[in-house]
Amino acid sequence: MVQVNENYLKLKAGYLFPEIAKRVKIYSQSEKSSKIIKLGIGDVTEPLPKACREAMSQALNDMGTIEGFKGYGPEQGYFWLRKKISDFDFISRGCQISPDEIFVSDGSKCDSSNILDILGNDNSIAVTDPVYPVYVDSNVMTGRTGNSIQNGTYQGLTYLAINEKNNFLPEIPKGKVDILYLCFPNNPTGATITKDELKRWVNYAVQNKSLILFDAAYEAFIQDEDIPHSIYEIEGAKDCAIEFRSFSKNAGFTGVRCAYTVIPKNLCGLRKTGEKVSLWSLWNRRQSTKFNGVSYIVQRGAEAVYSSEGKKEVRTLIDFYMENAKIMKNKLQTSGFTVYGGDNAPYIWIKVPDQMTSWDFFDYLLEKARVVGTPGSGFGLSGEGYFRLSAFNSRINVLDAMERIINI
Amino acid sequence: MVQVNENYLKLKAGYLFPEIAKRVKIYSQSEKSSKIIKLGIGDVTEPLPKACREAMSQALNDMGTIEGFKGYGPEQGYFWLRKKISDFDFISRGCQISPDEIFVSDGSKCDSSNILDILGNDNSIAVTDPVYPVYVDSNVMTGRTGNSIQNGTYQGLTYLAINEKNNFLPEIPKGKVDILYLCFPNNPTGATITKDELKRWVNYAVQNKSLILFDAAYEAFIQDEDIPHSIYEIEGAKDCAIEFRSFSKNAGFTGVRCAYTVIPKNLCGLRKTGEKVSLWSLWNRRQSTKFNGVSYIVQRGAEAVYSSEGKKEVRTLIDFYMENAKIMKNKLQTSGFTVYGGDNAPYIWIKVPDQMTSWDFFDYLLEKARVVGTPGSGFGLSGEGYFRLSAFNSRINVLDAMERIINI
Repeated sequence: MVQVNENYLKLKAGYLFPEIAKRVKIYSQSEKSSKIIKLGIGDVTEPLPKACREAMSQALNDMGTIEGFKGYGPEQGYFWLRKKISDFDFISRGCQISPDEIFVSDGSKCDSSNILDILGNDNSIAVTDPVYPVYVDSNVMTGRTGNSIQNGTYQGLTYLAINEKNNFLPEIPKGKVDILYLCFPNNPTGATITKDELKRWVNYAVQNKSLILFDAAYEAFIQDEDIPHSIYEIEGAKDCAIEFRSFSKNAGFTGVRCAYTVIPKNLCGLRKTGEKVSLWSLWNRRQSTKFNGVSYIVQRGAEAVYSSEGKKEVRTLIDFYMENAKIMKNKLQTSGFTVYGGDNAPYIWIKVPDQMTSWDFFDYLLEKARVVGTPGSGFGLSGEGYFRLSAFNSRINVLDAMERIINI
Repeated sequence: MVQVNENYLKLKAGYLFPEIAKRVKIYSQSEKSSKIIKLGIGDVTEPLPKACREAMSQALNDMGTIEGFKGYGPEQGYFWLRKKISDFDFISRGCQISPDEIFVSDGSKCDSSNILDILGNDNSIAVTDPVYPVYVDSNVMTGRTGNSIQNGTYQGLTYLAINEKNNFLPEIPKGKVDILYLCFPNNPTGATITKDELKRWVNYAVQNKSLILFDAAYEAFIQDEDIPHSIYEIEGAKDCAIEFRSFSKNAGFTGVRCAYTVIPKNLCGLRKTGEKVSLWSLWNRRQSTKFNGVSYIVQRGAEAVYSSEGKKEVRTLIDFYMENAKIMKNKLQTSGFTVYGGDNAPYIWIKVPDQMTSWDFFDYLLEKARVVGTPGSGFGLSGEGYFRLSAFNSRINVLDAMERIINI
């Protein structure tokens, strides 16, 4: 009799975004008065860069000829793409990350959850609170937590609160934790971390032989020069960190699907006997066995992100969304809201007015302004009392949404 | 101290195809006399159908406009693609599979290994021997087996031998097995199964509440009318089977990446308490949390497989490769080899001449004919004494390879 993985039954009903979609759908069916503006899910809206489209178009032509046709590619990604990533995203910033330490994939959501495949089930895990739900849910699914308790947290996970009091920077755990998820620029709060602060985390991890899973999906939005784009800008990080990167938010690839994960060759985990095992080798074996690489056409598109035309277009996209963020932050602050994030990240983290919960504020904005955002409590217990707005939308929608909110 | 998943260390060194690549590389470096013809890995060689390229080109244009731009799509795949799959691959064959029972993905290799995520770790597992190595390795990686023993098998797995004696059809297990992997048309042997035979497996599964994981990646190569293309052509299969399908081999998508998995809505597994749980719901949750859908551009390409032009082109591709298979089978039989498969599958399964092992024959063909195939023993213990040749190559290479083998 086939048995299911019972850990799935510990999951709280509904992933955050489907729940939002459901409420919006119900509201839309009852109120047809005017357009709903969606600033909820962090999905890009501007067209795909021309440099990427042209490269993909050329790749499609290749696929139409005997000589240019590409079948199975390397599971780790084509060398020409990994070399560009190495040169432009790492070497240029003084990080010695070689092409073979880069694993191209179809998404950071996949990588940041699949990474658990190569790690033992008994590791202790810490996440920030609030947090990107995938980190938590992928741990629940693989049996690395106990049941959820009444306040919505899971037994066995360590939650590191981030809030106004600590300037949205988690405190380093007092005890030993084996695996730490860090995301900077942060989703959902839009907070950043300085090199000095990040150095403290790397030191902790090296000292405790912990592993940092560093999600840098939003690094392209960094404006301030002293904020690190990669954890490998910090000395020692190659001994304790895996980094996740994506083309989703910089080049608008959310519907194209390309990302990559960096695993330094010398990075090790331990067997129960204390013997060291290369995490690079395990991930390489994982990807070779359970993955077949990213579409050749898509990889050519990603490569074009690093062409001079591509870089210009990505810069324009980032500037556009960051101008949205600036407008949103200014308008909201001027009208009396307390607002965080938005300076080096495409997310605005609003303090919800007194006496309202995050979901109250969600319903309130939906009804009164027909604007959709994301309730902070959907990202964790300490997200209660906050609300996320995304800067990914057209200028006209952003301006319209701000007017509507201000004029409630 | 971060611990690794020790199950990975049970894996036997090197996945089959990397080992082949290594031997070919060593040989190529020493012998530069003439071209090596590769009939090893089952990778397509002919250009991507024009209908698919045109649809993808149109999709690229969409991505260049505000109105046509697509960000995150549904994790399960776009409805228009799922509807086409439902209509043309199932309803047209009398199988009542609805679009929402279809999950579009980036590959069957991923799906057939990721499916274990939703299943309990204590299920008993049966695979055929020889077998597609991914089924075995993904079970080893998730701790569903013991160690490998000297003959190369893993403790705890049930191996169902397929060989000349049983006409390459596994015998139904005497005891209860919870999960059964079946692949027809078979990789690597090229064998097929009749509806009556498959009905016996479905009956067994229904009776024992087992789950059949049915890999139909090669269904497009079926020529005989009475061979089932889908397990859902068999009554009862919707209560006991998940089916994996792919665009890799029919439309030449090995480098484009698109596949799908069918999970009927009423298909259930059990909790330890005996309570039923929908596998569809678990997989839906898995995909929503750990996957972000397939590239919009690629899905438009897959949709075009079902256009009238696309269908014609796929037919031409299949006919081309099957003509290769026919040529190979005839030539090899005429020159005295005992040969199986090749009639409804793109694989020729050769009986290796006496006194040689599969790897001996691999080295022999490489040295004497400069032809690369796949040693049967790489697919399992009962594959020893056999050798797989793939029909995926140009006509000229196939003819050349056959001449070389015959003239050794």
